[in-house]
Amino acid sequence: MLIVMDKKASPKQIQQVVEAIESKGYMARPIPGGDRVSIGILNNKGPVDSGLFISLPGVKEAICVTRPYKLVSREIKPDHTLIKVGAVTIGNGHLTIMAGPCAIESESQAMTIAEKVKASGAHIFRGGAYKPRTSPYTFQGMGLDGLKILAKIRDTFDMPVITEVMDNETFDLVETYADIVQIGTRNMQNFSLLKRAGKSKRPVMLKRGMSATLEELLMAAEYILEAGNSNVILCERGVRTFVRHSRNTLDLSVVPVIHKESHLPVIIDPSHAAGKRDQVIPLSRASVAVGAHGLMVEVHHDPQNAMSDGAQSLLPEQFDQLVKEAQSLFKIVRPR
Amino acid sequence: MLIVMDKKASPKQIQQVVEAIESKGYMARPIPGGDRVSIGILNNKGPVDSGLFISLPGVKEAICVTRPYKLVSREIKPDHTLIKVGAVTIGNGHLTIMAGPCAIESESQAMTIAEKVKASGAHIFRGGAYKPRTSPYTFQGMGLDGLKILAKIRDTFDMPVITEVMDNETFDLVETYADIVQIGTRNMQNFSLLKRAGKSKRPVMLKRGMSATLEELLMAAEYILEAGNSNVILCERGVRTFVRHSRNTLDLSVVPVIHKESHLPVIIDPSHAAGKRDQVIPLSRASVAVGAHGLMVEVHHDPQNAMSDGAQSLLPEQFDQLVKEAQSLFKIVRPR
Amino acid sequence: MLIVMDKKASPKQIQQVVEAIESKGYMARPIPGGDRVSIGILNNKGPVDSGLFISLPGVKEAICVTRPYKLVSREIKPDHTLIKVGAVTIGNGHLTIMAGPCAIESESQAMTIAEKVKASGAHIFRGGAYKPRTSPYTFQGMGLDGLKILAKIRDTFDMPVITEVMDNETFDLVETYADIVQIGTRNMQNFSLLKRAGKSKRPVMLKRGMSATLEELLMAAEYILEAGNSNVILCERGVRTFVRHSRNTLDLSVVPVIHKESHLPVIIDPSHAAGKRDQVIPLSRASVAVGAHGLMVEVHHDPQNAMSDGAQSLLPEQFDQLVKEAQSLFKIVRPR
Amino acid sequence: MLIVMDKKASPKQIQQVVEAIESKGYMARPIPGGDRVSIGILNNKGPVDSGLFISLPGVKEAICVTRPYKLVSREIKPDHTLIKVGAVTIGNGHLTIMAGPCAIESESQAMTIAEKVKASGAHIFRGGAYKPRTSPYTFQGMGLDGLKILAKIRDTFDMPVITEVMDNETFDLVETYADIVQIGTRNMQNFSLLKRAGKSKRPVMLKRGMSATLEELLMAAEYILEAGNSNVILCERGVRTFVRHSRNTLDLSVVPVIHKESHLPVIIDPSHAAGKRDQVIPLSRASVAVGAHGLMVEVHHDPQNAMSDGAQSLLPEQFDQLVKEAQSLFKIVRPR
Repeated sequence: MLIVMDKKASPKQIQQVVEAIESKGYMARPIPGGDRVSIGILNNKGPVDSGLFISLPGVKEAICVTRPYKLVSREIKPDHTLIKVGAVTIGNGHLTIMAGPCAIESESQAMTIAEKVKASGAHIFRGGAYKPRTSPYTFQGMGLDGLKILAKIRDTFDMPVITEVMDNETFDLVETYADIVQIGTRNMQNFSLLKRAGKSKRPVMLKRGMSATLEELLMAAEYILEAGNSNVILCERGVRTFVRHSRNTLDLSVVPVIHKESHLPVIIDPSHAAGKRDQVIPLSRASVAVGAHGLMVEVHHDPQNAMSDGAQSLLPEQFDQLVKEAQSLFKIVRPR
Repeated sequence: MLIVMDKKASPKQIQQVVEAIESKGYMARPIPGGDRVSIGILNNKGPVDSGLFISLPGVKEAICVTRPYKLVSREIKPDHTLIKVGAVTIGNGHLTIMAGPCAIESESQAMTIAEKVKASGAHIFRGGAYKPRTSPYTFQGMGLDGLKILAKIRDTFDMPVITEVMDNETFDLVETYADIVQIGTRNMQNFSLLKRAGKSKRPVMLKRGMSATLEELLMAAEYILEAGNSNVILCERGVRTFVRHSRNTLDLSVVPVIHKESHLPVIIDPSHAAGKRDQVIPLSRASVAVGAHGLMVEVHHDPQNAMSDGAQSLLPEQFDQLVKEAQSLFKIVRPR
Repeated sequence: MLIVMDKKASPKQIQQVVEAIESKGYMARPIPGGDRVSIGILNNKGPVDSGLFISLPGVKEAICVTRPYKLVSREIKPDHTLIKVGAVTIGNGHLTIMAGPCAIESESQAMTIAEKVKASGAHIFRGGAYKPRTSPYTFQGMGLDGLKILAKIRDTFDMPVITEVMDNETFDLVETYADIVQIGTRNMQNFSLLKRAGKSKRPVMLKRGMSATLEELLMAAEYILEAGNSNVILCERGVRTFVRHSRNTLDLSVVPVIHKESHLPVIIDPSHAAGKRDQVIPLSRASVAVGAHGLMVEVHHDPQNAMSDGAQSLLPEQFDQLVKEAQSLFKIVRPR
Repeated sequence: MLIVMDKKASPKQIQQVVEAIESKGYMARPIPGGDRVSIGILNNKGPVDSGLFISLPGVKEAICVTRPYKLVSREIKPDHTLIKVGAVTIGNGHLTIMAGPCAIESESQAMTIAEKVKASGAHIFRGGAYKPRTSPYTFQGMGLDGLKILAKIRDTFDMPVITEVMDNETFDLVETYADIVQIGTRNMQNFSLLKRAGKSKRPVMLKRGMSATLEELLMAAEYILEAGNSNVILCERGVRTFVRHSRNTLDLSVVPVIHKESHLPVIIDPSHAAGKRDQVIPLSRASVAVGAHGLMVEVHHDPQNAMSDGAQSLLPEQFDQLVKEAQSLFKIVRPR
């Protein structure tokens, strides 16, 4: 941490800051500049709370220099994390396609879609059994019955399944049926849930919060790793901005920065970002081109009658075409 | 809902939309305009999923006309909700001041601060026992010991207490000790927690999510009311924007709109919005002036050594001055 | 426009709105709904000002149904606009690469870079002669001398040039030397400049404002077309959001929506969005994959000593590799 | 500036950065930390371009420590700037009310409103003669005729007038008629216009851009001061965020930070921020309470027939009430 003093800070004020730093067991190193003094804090183990110093007289601001995350950091673990789920590997060098309906609505709906996405080349089946919904009056998911349908899909089509967990009460259950447990956008900083996920044997896909910074996303993942589970997949799904032509703004710039800062794989969900089918295909192409390790795409054979998110679900034939294009694009951009 | 057609939509396409609407049991009413046709959807009970129509050929967009919330809406309950906690009333005509440290750190710290804020005129004591922290490596709160200290403060100073609940596992415990249960920003759309809060006997203060729209905030409150608890206090605490001179951007415009849309009281937390002590006092004044029903302010007698959020905590003497000003301002702007 | 009434609006209030609409020469069509009445406004030529009605008693809100833009709209001109500059065509079916330094710094700097980007396959040379700078104390561009260097580059390398115009005073001059005139982000709603650009014989590249909605961007283009110049290229260069890991957030979702709403070509500038070299290459790939008609990329042979934007400039060998990849990606995603 | 190195940066890479810093004539001071080295840059006059260093091998990031603005900074000029316009003083200790219609529509409209706002206690009359409009098809202002009406108002009511200038072509004219020249939101970084404003004899009110940071606003003001005009008034008018219940989000937190960073006065325009009349009064109260030096409010005696912004204009009787409240609030919060 660097404490920046006012231009007119007195020597006594500077001395007070130095003493405050030293009283915490850190080392203080004043750096006289052209028009003001800054004071570096050294020898700290772990994060320093800027609040300790920012309100001292003569202090202009406190600037964080180091990163607060450790276990997720590429500086600590330079090699890529590869996550194996059955025969599928997620991470550097692989393009993993997850596809399926927003929600499991019935066995026949789910099986129909699963058969189609499998045939098109999807690696993992997605489908919600517990659904976080903005309104208490809309469909909340099939619950345990939905989980059982997912298990049947895995067995029938030899395809791992991913589904969302919403709370600690149902975590055991979800974990029993799912190959990958998903933590949703609205729960990215549900720290109780993150701690529980850290004790799971299953890989966890952690979706970025609607307005989470990259640092907050990585710190949320840090909770899971710190609690013992190092199989974490990050997922970008659009952030909230002033923009109104798409539901959220897909932040593809996060992908190269994640590659640089962390060893964890990153998947893109263009369906939720776009909110409209027309945008899903071009954004999927862009997601592969920017270097993501995979896509999560909503597909429905009868979107007009879908119980949720019909407007953003691809038709199976659109998805089929998309997988072909994605694989072609991936050949060009894949790391060598 | 209003379905807007393309300028060049054919009569057949318009007919298809009409049929799709009617097949759901709604009534369709086409409205020929100057250069395009729109189609109104009537006779719907509850929200209509725009996804059902937006992907039909010839449809340009679907516009929501009605509000999705019911129980929280002033259209349904025109009179103000007043919430009584001990001798304190929260809501229209009252200015309620909640104050205390970010976190309960020890009995002596909490008692010292409680005595001071009580003397200055605070109505309710705040203090965190379970702390949601971005980093797993920072202080996570005293837990049950913190709750017990809160109970002692209530008994000693005859002051109701408010504290945050982070998960369903600890809800029973928190509810036992707290007079008002707080749901934090990061949990605003933790729907399992909202449903549990709906079964509580305690009033619930629901903080707006970091990038929640007003509609999402009201729908989150709707979850609590729908589950049976109508004593909900809304809390604005700043939203995430591009701005960097304050930690979050306090959105005071939400206050008059909440007054118009909902009967629920609204409290402002300027401490978390600002993140810096210098901004807390002017933003508190503005919060009273804009018509909020109260303030929640962080106060610490020794902010340099606070375990969290020291930089934004007021000193007791600053708080004392603030309460006086707030009461003076409230006399001018209070509804008559 | 649709006027939505309060649930409890009285018949008299509804009648007042109808009369207000008719007094403006429009037609009013009330639409009784399940729980409230809406009133459609018909027969309007041009935009209706919602302010005329929103403050009448009993009115809840006014919703715009039609689009305010005309000449830029694909509903009015369904076929793609193709813009020819010398031997280069910009628009559907083409991938146009514009490259060069942020600023023209000297003849030798510009000629060195021009030679390299031409050899790598760039179609158009970019370089600023008049530079909009946040600080009055930093390099403001070479002005006329810079324009003359651009002219020399065009003649030497047989390459059209694009450069920014900052005001009406220098428009004649810039127009004389440039093949495409660029209007920068900060001037997107400088309406005097837009009107002047509408009288230019040169194609105009209009960059999206830092927080402009798509509608505002298209309306700014509408100013140029309305004044007589239909050769407008739109440019996405990142928007301002809460995100801090990149300078701006590149909004690639705007590309498919522009394709749908407008016939104008769209170019992506990933250099300004990213602000950091590491992100420029992956974002360029994504820009091609999402369906943009071209890229504008900053290249510098000696970025350490660049007078502006060195950190985001590609080295010539990076650019060479990028052009190859971009062309490969374009073959896969180009419209057929 | 502080250059932060990677954890694994080699001594040779550190040495290269030191040399790069010294080659620019600055002094480099390496600061060894717990797990990485940072390098302070000293002895720089004026801003350092981070681009010069950020792309060197082993560099993680570059952090700006000093502020880029000078003349507007309170560190350089600690005493408040007071601006006198006729008998009115704007700045610390004063609450200045500017009021009038969005646009001058006719002599009778303007005179009617001027008489009313004068009677209610407004100090300065506002009204647009040149109007920046999103659409080329809407009313663009009366131009010179509007300016002449403003002059008549000044003479008749002994009230200074403020009006917007849109370009350098009309600057001479506007300056001749106006007492304060306003630069609008969309032109905040129209640097040619700022330079011209710097040569004006009139005070300039500079409105914050829709997504301008405080630093950018202050740097835009710096352009005007640097060119010779030190009479600059800053104006907050709402920023663009994800929020939809108000047109823009009024950022009141900027007021205390401006007071701290700069000696220039700051005025709030709640009318444009809100976009709806209902919000203007509470936001005006909050603006006074937060410590602004004044308000700019739109007032219209016949908003239903206003040619622009009718929905956000107060009625004269509402304005009358507002002025009374504002003065009462100001007595409580004014600096002593």
